[in-house]
Amino acid sequence: MATRTPSRPGGKTADAIPDEDGRQRAVIDAVMPVVDAGRFAVKAIAGEPVRVQANCFTDGHDVLRVVLRWRAEAAIGHQEVEMALAYNDEWFASFTPEAPGRYHYTVTAWVDHFESWRHELSRRVDDEDIRIAALVGAELVEDAAKRAKGDDKIALKNWAKQLRKNGGDAQALKALALDPLQAELARRHPDRQGATHFPIELPLVADRPRARYSSWYELFPRSTSPEPGQHGTFKDVEARLPYVAEMGFDVLYFPPIHPIGREKRKGRNNALTTEAGDVGSPWAIGASEGGHKSILPELGSPEDFRSLVGKAKALGLDIAMDIAFQCAPDHPYVQAHPEWFRWRPDGTVQYAENPPKKYQDIYPFNFETDDWRALWQELKSVFDHWIGEGVTIFRVDNPHTKAFPFWEWAITAIKREHPEVLFLAEAFTRPKVMHRLAKLGYSQSYTYFTWRNTKQELTDYFTELSQGPGKDYFRPNVWPNTPDILNEHLHAGGRPIFALRLVLAATLSSSYGIYGPAYELLDNVPRSPGSEEYLNSEKYQLRHWGDWDVARPDSLAQLIAKVNGIRRDNPALQSNESLRFFHTDNDQLIAYAKQTADGDNLILTIANLDPHNPQSGWITLEGDVLNLDHSSQYEVHDLLNEQRFTWQGLRNFVILDPRQAPAHVFRLRKRVQDERHFDNFA
Amino acid sequence: MATRTPSRPGGKTADAIPDEDGRQRAVIDAVMPVVDAGRFAVKAIAGEPVRVQANCFTDGHDVLRVVLRWRAEAAIGHQEVEMALAYNDEWFASFTPEAPGRYHYTVTAWVDHFESWRHELSRRVDDEDIRIAALVGAELVEDAAKRAKGDDKIALKNWAKQLRKNGGDAQALKALALDPLQAELARRHPDRQGATHFPIELPLVADRPRARYSSWYELFPRSTSPEPGQHGTFKDVEARLPYVAEMGFDVLYFPPIHPIGREKRKGRNNALTTEAGDVGSPWAIGASEGGHKSILPELGSPEDFRSLVGKAKALGLDIAMDIAFQCAPDHPYVQAHPEWFRWRPDGTVQYAENPPKKYQDIYPFNFETDDWRALWQELKSVFDHWIGEGVTIFRVDNPHTKAFPFWEWAITAIKREHPEVLFLAEAFTRPKVMHRLAKLGYSQSYTYFTWRNTKQELTDYFTELSQGPGKDYFRPNVWPNTPDILNEHLHAGGRPIFALRLVLAATLSSSYGIYGPAYELLDNVPRSPGSEEYLNSEKYQLRHWGDWDVARPDSLAQLIAKVNGIRRDNPALQSNESLRFFHTDNDQLIAYAKQTADGDNLILTIANLDPHNPQSGWITLEGDVLNLDHSSQYEVHDLLNEQRFTWQGLRNFVILDPRQAPAHVFRLRKRVQDERHFDNFA
Repeated sequence: MATRTPSRPGGKTADAIPDEDGRQRAVIDAVMPVVDAGRFAVKAIAGEPVRVQANCFTDGHDVLRVVLRWRAEAAIGHQEVEMALAYNDEWFASFTPEAPGRYHYTVTAWVDHFESWRHELSRRVDDEDIRIAALVGAELVEDAAKRAKGDDKIALKNWAKQLRKNGGDAQALKALALDPLQAELARRHPDRQGATHFPIELPLVADRPRARYSSWYELFPRSTSPEPGQHGTFKDVEARLPYVAEMGFDVLYFPPIHPIGREKRKGRNNALTTEAGDVGSPWAIGASEGGHKSILPELGSPEDFRSLVGKAKALGLDIAMDIAFQCAPDHPYVQAHPEWFRWRPDGTVQYAENPPKKYQDIYPFNFETDDWRALWQELKSVFDHWIGEGVTIFRVDNPHTKAFPFWEWAITAIKREHPEVLFLAEAFTRPKVMHRLAKLGYSQSYTYFTWRNTKQELTDYFTELSQGPGKDYFRPNVWPNTPDILNEHLHAGGRPIFALRLVLAATLSSSYGIYGPAYELLDNVPRSPGSEEYLNSEKYQLRHWGDWDVARPDSLAQLIAKVNGIRRDNPALQSNESLRFFHTDNDQLIAYAKQTADGDNLILTIANLDPHNPQSGWITLEGDVLNLDHSSQYEVHDLLNEQRFTWQGLRNFVILDPRQAPAHVFRLRKRVQDERHFDNFA
Repeated sequence: MATRTPSRPGGKTADAIPDEDGRQRAVIDAVMPVVDAGRFAVKAIAGEPVRVQANCFTDGHDVLRVVLRWRAEAAIGHQEVEMALAYNDEWFASFTPEAPGRYHYTVTAWVDHFESWRHELSRRVDDEDIRIAALVGAELVEDAAKRAKGDDKIALKNWAKQLRKNGGDAQALKALALDPLQAELARRHPDRQGATHFPIELPLVADRPRARYSSWYELFPRSTSPEPGQHGTFKDVEARLPYVAEMGFDVLYFPPIHPIGREKRKGRNNALTTEAGDVGSPWAIGASEGGHKSILPELGSPEDFRSLVGKAKALGLDIAMDIAFQCAPDHPYVQAHPEWFRWRPDGTVQYAENPPKKYQDIYPFNFETDDWRALWQELKSVFDHWIGEGVTIFRVDNPHTKAFPFWEWAITAIKREHPEVLFLAEAFTRPKVMHRLAKLGYSQSYTYFTWRNTKQELTDYFTELSQGPGKDYFRPNVWPNTPDILNEHLHAGGRPIFALRLVLAATLSSSYGIYGPAYELLDNVPRSPGSEEYLNSEKYQLRHWGDWDVARPDSLAQLIAKVNGIRRDNPALQSNESLRFFHTDNDQLIAYAKQTADGDNLILTIANLDPHNPQSGWITLEGDVLNLDHSSQYEVHDLLNEQRFTWQGLRNFVILDPRQAPAHVFRLRKRVQDERHFDNFA
């Protein structure tokens, strides 16, 4: 919030000298990572080091000392870490936020006269200069002694005394003055009076690791009954949990589970009128049975829900809940809080519309209501309610159609109390809006992946996501399909295109998800040619997916399990910042790698973007990215099919047949063994 | 200064709702140009429009209005300009700071219910919807009428009344509701109650045009005597003014003109001892005759200096003065203000040193003195003194060895009183330090041009200077040579390399300078092989350059005059932001263009970087940069030698012989005439 205060230089006379001490000679020009000059929090993961860079220097040749100062938000004092100069006035240090929560960090730097003296002395050659320098040093050490206590004080006083006895050999005096142990002692008691403090404490939010690395599976609980035509229940979902867990997912996400409005209910395939038995859209929330804190009776009871959450957790699955802040006309809020809605001159509530389109089954909240404080509190209490029921992940529906200040307040407040809670922004909208939501606090964000299909599109987009200005706050979560998006690309291409998009999502992004069983069972029928809507979409009706456990022969379930297993075993795939693309001489082949910071785990994916034909070509790796050169020999081990090849140098040939595999997912192992590693090599 | 206040979120309870109005739904995500979130001023030119971008949006589909608000620093209220949405939530507007000085700008945005209503209405088709919308509109218009006065109030009330008469034809009602003249009326009285104000007023410094476009000539006044061995005077310089002006320069810069210290004076070629008649370095400032506000008696009197300044101005030349804040041991400050210097334990003043190098003829100021306020005031008064003598440009020597807070205060204070004054930072140092000085207020900065020689080096560096993050505050001034830098590149290569570097400097950068007559007379003799120091440097002795007015046959004076004339006639060369480089298939050929915003003036430079051999190759222009395509025919007119060629398409062949010319400096004229321009073409 530091930059919120408007600045208007006051009535100072033209050359009034500033009140601050003009002798603060150290300059802190930038501290990174940073989002909008500290207006928003940087995102990090609890237990993982945050590398902070500060650009610091001073006039002339004096030596600086720079410290990183950080604290958990609630802590009283700062912890300090000495920063080290790397190159080009860039100083670095790391700190580790141990637990999820909010942190602050900043930097202090000062011209250190002791270090400057020592640095200059080390380069002095003239005897007389050394003798004078020893006296200067004695003064500095005496000053340090004044700041020290106990043994340090005594030792420093002694050292100063020796430095003042400068009758003898100048070179011996120089050695005494440069004594590293003594220097370490003095360094512990620096003179920080003229220190420069970076004027902003930068905020940071540390999340649990699932914010960085997660594999999502979305299903409609109402479609999980083993009986065709029967409304599924939470008990039915419990029976499906092993299936989901065995595919290797760790988040199971449900569309809204609340009572569904009856007024203006939509029929199958979004029809304006219903037929008997039509179940309506789960996003038309609220009816006489209750609203956002209630459960659709057909799904089960609150106890059933808690049981499901517990059983999922036991299998390593977080249940993610959909939060859609909108009301069906018969939502209890409409009666209880008419002031939270907009009213039209004809005495009706303003439904959602984007003329000429109308959504009469949905009433949006009016965030400009005079009663906005009560509205905010009530909406936040919806999250609080479900957190109480064991939910720790929320997928928020269309957050970009609700007032932005609400999200910043609500997410910050909820995470202060429950730092383990994560929020996924379902905002398929314009780039700056998506970025703003991430800045306001969303832990993960949906992306444009669905609409990025060519090599150039994928390369540009994922380079931007992993290296661009959003990398410190925008965590992508990529979905090959959703109940709303059956991309045209999937309409044709059959099983190979589904396999390809799955592998791309899972290897390009450390967080991804699919909407199933539509995905693994290859549902590719749009409502009309070119439409992104599913025919007979589960949004408006029950679907029966057959017996999932005995997989159909063409089901992708086994491939998905394989891919999620590779993700679990290879930490390179669990974050995005190392992603780099490589040149291929065939535009249907895309090649990219991810690796851990130590380079130990290195995954090279080469995918054939053509679902119809085998494609081949030459891949040119970048030696400086992968730490290889033209003479390197290394093994590439395809984790999808367990094939191993020995490659040499940076250019290698690849052929991929979509009927066999969408991609190579290679683990690259450098051959470090050669004759020089024999014990007797001399 | 907005971001200087440290932020430490206070003791609010976890979910306290913020005090601000949560109904401020408009988001202003970024305002540009901006330097370090408003901590430093953006630089602009008085009389030229500043294009401001704001990234603004709101939740949902409502329509925003966005205004740019700006003011001169001393002004009471803001002026407002309506911003227009271009694309991708980016809004633009311009304002023009008419006079040099300091300005502030910020942005206000609000969800405009009238505009939103009108936008939705335009897309409505249903009669009943239109009737209801008309009633909603009537309310909005009545509200606008309440904010209006006089005729507007009456007209708006009338319009609202008509909108309420909604018995008739819905389409006629829609037309009435969309009436553009009525809308314009309502637009004048918007409801800005829920407006969002960008929290920072961004500072901007507007300079006179010479800050953007300047051609500098440096000479040592003491070397201007027509008599060999004679100490030159300001009168001698007056006699040289036409020579400098005819070459087309507009800034004439002198090394320090103050009394030169006698204690520890350096001899010729930086010798530690002097011989009789040695004149010393002008940068060893101060002696019994005076210090930084005095003139070396050998050069003349204050009256002579004022006369010279006046005569130069009459020829279009600004005199730039060197400000070097350091003292010779016999500078009067040393006696009068011993507290402004560091003292060594042996009772001597600490001279400048970078061990093992010593500069015993130079005492630096101690910016950590307890008396720093008085030191700051005195140093500032040096500028004030020379401004009083008519100087408006200062070239500051080694600003990076003086405390940075001093510069920010001094430059800001001086420019508040004298906004026409310009400062050039002579800081040949590390990049972040150079950038900081520019942020602190320096109008122009020396660069690394001297050390950028290959095609790749020049392309990378000038792309960074013209497009990089410094473009809003760092104005490069590039020098092929200085009295301190005779780059190794110039040692061999003879006249062609001098001609080449001159043309590169003058066409790559809108501000450049040379140190003459050493440059145009091709002085290329270093003190030792590989050294960047001149042999018999004017820094330590008088030089006699012969009779400059009758140019030596190999002098570059005519070429320089030609090049500066081209710069004057072609506004494309007077700024840097349009600079773009093009592909050449020969690494000895570099090609780049600059153009005015309207594309009317377009200069394409193609230089041969090899001073020894003719080089030829194909140049590939970028059609989207130059607004050309493969079928374009256009004329390229070489302004250096008046040759004209007709080129077609984007690839063309070039051959350049360094014995004839270092480069083509083409003005590119598109052929717009063809048969379709005949009057009778139909």
